[in-house]
Amino acid sequence: MYRAIEWITAADGKPAVRMMDQRLVPEQSTTVDCTDYQQIAAAIETMVIRGAPAIGLAAAYGLALTAARGPQDIASLRDTLHQAAARLRTARPTAVNLAWALDRMLRRLNDPALQTVEAVQAAAAAEAQAIDAENLQMELDIARHAFPLIPDPAYIYHHCNTGPLATGGYGTALGAIRYAHEQGKRVHVFVDETRPRLQGARLTTWELQQMGIPFTLLPDGASGYIMRTRRVDLCLVGCDRVAANGDVANKIGTYNLALAAHAHHVPFYVVGPSSSVDLQTPNGDAIPIEMRPAEEVTHIGGVRITPEGCPVANPAFDVTPAALLTGIVTERGVAYPPLGESLARLLRP
Amino acid sequence: MYRAIEWITAADGKPAVRMMDQRLVPEQSTTVDCTDYQQIAAAIETMVIRGAPAIGLAAAYGLALTAARGPQDIASLRDTLHQAAARLRTARPTAVNLAWALDRMLRRLNDPALQTVEAVQAAAAAEAQAIDAENLQMELDIARHAFPLIPDPAYIYHHCNTGPLATGGYGTALGAIRYAHEQGKRVHVFVDETRPRLQGARLTTWELQQMGIPFTLLPDGASGYIMRTRRVDLCLVGCDRVAANGDVANKIGTYNLALAAHAHHVPFYVVGPSSSVDLQTPNGDAIPIEMRPAEEVTHIGGVRITPEGCPVANPAFDVTPAALLTGIVTERGVAYPPLGESLARLLRP
Repeated sequence: MYRAIEWITAADGKPAVRMMDQRLVPEQSTTVDCTDYQQIAAAIETMVIRGAPAIGLAAAYGLALTAARGPQDIASLRDTLHQAAARLRTARPTAVNLAWALDRMLRRLNDPALQTVEAVQAAAAAEAQAIDAENLQMELDIARHAFPLIPDPAYIYHHCNTGPLATGGYGTALGAIRYAHEQGKRVHVFVDETRPRLQGARLTTWELQQMGIPFTLLPDGASGYIMRTRRVDLCLVGCDRVAANGDVANKIGTYNLALAAHAHHVPFYVVGPSSSVDLQTPNGDAIPIEMRPAEEVTHIGGVRITPEGCPVANPAFDVTPAALLTGIVTERGVAYPPLGESLARLLRP
Repeated sequence: MYRAIEWITAADGKPAVRMMDQRLVPEQSTTVDCTDYQQIAAAIETMVIRGAPAIGLAAAYGLALTAARGPQDIASLRDTLHQAAARLRTARPTAVNLAWALDRMLRRLNDPALQTVEAVQAAAAAEAQAIDAENLQMELDIARHAFPLIPDPAYIYHHCNTGPLATGGYGTALGAIRYAHEQGKRVHVFVDETRPRLQGARLTTWELQQMGIPFTLLPDGASGYIMRTRRVDLCLVGCDRVAANGDVANKIGTYNLALAAHAHHVPFYVVGPSSSVDLQTPNGDAIPIEMRPAEEVTHIGGVRITPEGCPVANPAFDVTPAALLTGIVTERGVAYPPLGESLARLLRP
């Protein structure tokens, strides 16, 4: 299958990070090769790569790249790694995976036992690749925990994009759907187009086509209509950060979908790795919500759709309160309400 | 102010109907002149003109045009008028204003006292112009009834487009906002972009700019976020058909907005002429919902945004159950729950 992000050897014989340019899917299949952390940070900011797990992975590889191509004395290299981490940390504020991956990398690279540049380089590459491999394994475990929640046949509502493009691995919510399909369950996906960046219309439709899973694309405003007039068995969405009380930050429009599901008694599950749970964030109000450029709303494909000088609010995420969730599916199992307690139990080492 | 639709004299000295091509607003200011009912029907179907009151008016002028340019013997003319009405009636199925305007025109034109072609022509033009003038007056009355519901200052959420472009007159929900602004209240409008045709992003923003009313444009999926984080005093939306029990068919996404408003205890008012109330339709389930072409979702500005062969559902409208409404504002006053009873009372001759 296609890879959203890969650790490759560049023409100069040194490591590089190759990403699919997700801004161009499905029209074009173009990759971008990054050779320093500034390029990685810019790729995250401009959404060449997006999706909470994938940007965590990109940040980890960003540090591995910094080690591989950085200063040749150990003290300068450590300084540069900390500069790189600080820069990468600011690329996008909402998803906790980015900070989680950077913290894990720094813990490993700060190990005083790493006394040479070569040792730091090897440890950085190994740690980033370990995160990559563990992500894939975690996502398979997530899919197995979600499996019993999906009936056969199943009509599943999905928001934004949570497949291999979003995670660099197997997928989270879309991974659960993919696994059910691979195990022979008959699934049909209602795909929210997910304005303003249309990740559903562009990416999820394309991934479902690759997987051979039937689907129907809909404008975001049609979810209530569909639940009122068609069979919908459950909603599966991803997450960018889960607060300690179970409030969930995810792509803008998730909250509206959860309200429609609630009104129609449709089970609503959030799906993601346990590293998305941030016990330091008490509730959704404490999650910083990224505001993105107006042009994402005023222009589509470079073409202006609004009058000149049109004021816009473009929040990239919203918060769905814990009370609207049926459960949170992680690689450690499913947390059910009361979510504060069950998440704390699930995360216990 | 600009006119969505006008009864004009064409270069050949006979009447014609001039419409703004609303598919091109705000990029271009282009008008389309129609000289027969097939052109009017096509303009309604392709949404050169849209908005429930405006398409009713277009249909009325379509019959006036048929009379003015039709057969020169009275029997053939009556036949042609009935053919024209039948054709126009099928142009779009959901809004009741279309059928209402045609029925009113036919009642007038079937008057046996109209014994000459000239008499039918004069009566048709006069009746269509009367509908036009009455619409404008009704919309001013609607705005006056809405006035006490709007605080000062007011933060108002609005869906789709309900201004002069949508009605051919003063506007319904947007007319209420306009009137409050003209009377000196400080109003700020949150504008749902209204996928897939982006009537909010394209038309409502443009009309609010013309009116000098401040606003913020948002993707449809952001309404829950805004209500969770900002002051919103009330929602004002239009209607394409109100069933006898108060269920309301309106532009897709209205139901989702109503669910968000309900969750945040934001008053939700439907605004429209009493002719939008269809006592023959017992409830929302009996309202036919138009499904529109997939291309409205898969393409924007002629550019494909989805993969090839992407299956789509594109309902043009949804039904908001009466239980979610705070009230329905008409030119006869405001109907409050229980809406079945209050609408019946309001509509009594």
